[in-house]
Amino acid sequence: MHILLTNDDGIAAPGIQALWQELASIAEITVVAPDSERSAMSQAITVHHPIRVDKSSIAGANVQAWRVGGTPTDCVKIALEALLDKKPDIVVSGINNGPNMGTDVLYSGTVSAAIEGALHGIPAIAVSLACWHAADYVPAARFAAKAVQELLTRSLPPNTLLNINVPDLPQDKITGVEITKLGVIEYENTFERRMDPRGRTYYWMGGSQVDIENEDGTDVAALKNGKISVTPIHFDLTNYGIMHSLEEWNLKI
Amino acid sequence: MHILLTNDDGIAAPGIQALWQELASIAEITVVAPDSERSAMSQAITVHHPIRVDKSSIAGANVQAWRVGGTPTDCVKIALEALLDKKPDIVVSGINNGPNMGTDVLYSGTVSAAIEGALHGIPAIAVSLACWHAADYVPAARFAAKAVQELLTRSLPPNTLLNINVPDLPQDKITGVEITKLGVIEYENTFERRMDPRGRTYYWMGGSQVDIENEDGTDVAALKNGKISVTPIHFDLTNYGIMHSLEEWNLKI
Repeated sequence: MHILLTNDDGIAAPGIQALWQELASIAEITVVAPDSERSAMSQAITVHHPIRVDKSSIAGANVQAWRVGGTPTDCVKIALEALLDKKPDIVVSGINNGPNMGTDVLYSGTVSAAIEGALHGIPAIAVSLACWHAADYVPAARFAAKAVQELLTRSLPPNTLLNINVPDLPQDKITGVEITKLGVIEYENTFERRMDPRGRTYYWMGGSQVDIENEDGTDVAALKNGKISVTPIHFDLTNYGIMHSLEEWNLKI
Repeated sequence: MHILLTNDDGIAAPGIQALWQELASIAEITVVAPDSERSAMSQAITVHHPIRVDKSSIAGANVQAWRVGGTPTDCVKIALEALLDKKPDIVVSGINNGPNMGTDVLYSGTVSAAIEGALHGIPAIAVSLACWHAADYVPAARFAAKAVQELLTRSLPPNTLLNINVPDLPQDKITGVEITKLGVIEYENTFERRMDPRGRTYYWMGGSQVDIENEDGTDVAALKNGKISVTPIHFDLTNYGIMHSLEEWNLKI
């Protein structure tokens, strides 16, 4: 089995290290990851600048690796279309430092990298740990290894991938695994206005999460209850349900 | 009526100018757009750098404007959450220089900016012209004005927006308007490998579109037939259809 690993926290991040350490016992690993942190990049690609790609080594590991001066989606594209001799069996993106749940998934570089794998017809999973600080990635890495093996024995329909979020708990405190739908996440006080020493205005995007009710069955609710969430993701953005009613609109040239 | 305009080609691009020139006769216009080209940025947001925001003026126009050192999604977020006193009635993103159809929509800054509007509960449309060179944006701007008025008298369900693509034809050569689904777009020879003067490798992302069959009813086929495509877009990425079968997988902690 050959696994392509990527992430959006950069090739040196602890999350991706935990992942290849766990997965190296069951598969051949190739890491193609950003040279530095590229979070919140969504599915951005680099089309107006050249992309640096350097062969990298991972100390003490029999893992092939490249570091890329680009976005997570660049990494998957360039791996599949330029670097690898053969298609990997699966793309795994993560383990992200921080959750990727609900509407936040739209901004996520981690999830978008997995989407890019699925766009190329390759089974893909994204894995995130719901913690922003120094954390133990081992329970998440172990669960990722299980999901990888399960995904390759079962199969997903085309254009579908799995988005996994793991609570920041010791393995024996995790209360279960739930198949979920995406919930809703909202922020308040998002922008902080500041003045630079020359009197010009700039803003920082920040904000704190609003504690809104997420019903049972969502990824957000599952994590709150100490569970791992597994959300099947598709990326067909057509809203088929309203196509018929749009025919009645007065949209003529 | 108050319209928020943005784009991903930058505030000085001809597409957004054609749009406010057309829409200024039916609404109050606020432009909040990137200070330079930010295409293929998907729904990326700027969380690790400060964002410059400068009041801008548009010569000879009674249009309020800000230029933003950020992505298209940054522009919509900062407009709605920090710059505007009141919610606009509609967000219009474009007119993009180049089509945004099929799977390419996933990478589009233009469409993502409209998604961000819809995420804030505001009716939104994205408009793109299927041409990469100097072009006449007037037919697309006129159609956008029609769509804006229609959108505000009818209504769309929550979390839904319209993605409009206009062929690069004189108005009297456009053969009609079609309500479409997203098609499929694929590229070949995407990466070109080069060597810099110091012997280090870099890549350019380029590639040419593969001429794959897109069935009738897709945006790609509509444009090929000289029509304007109007695709209803949603952004709930949950694949509900396979949640039940995933329950049978062996995904335990």
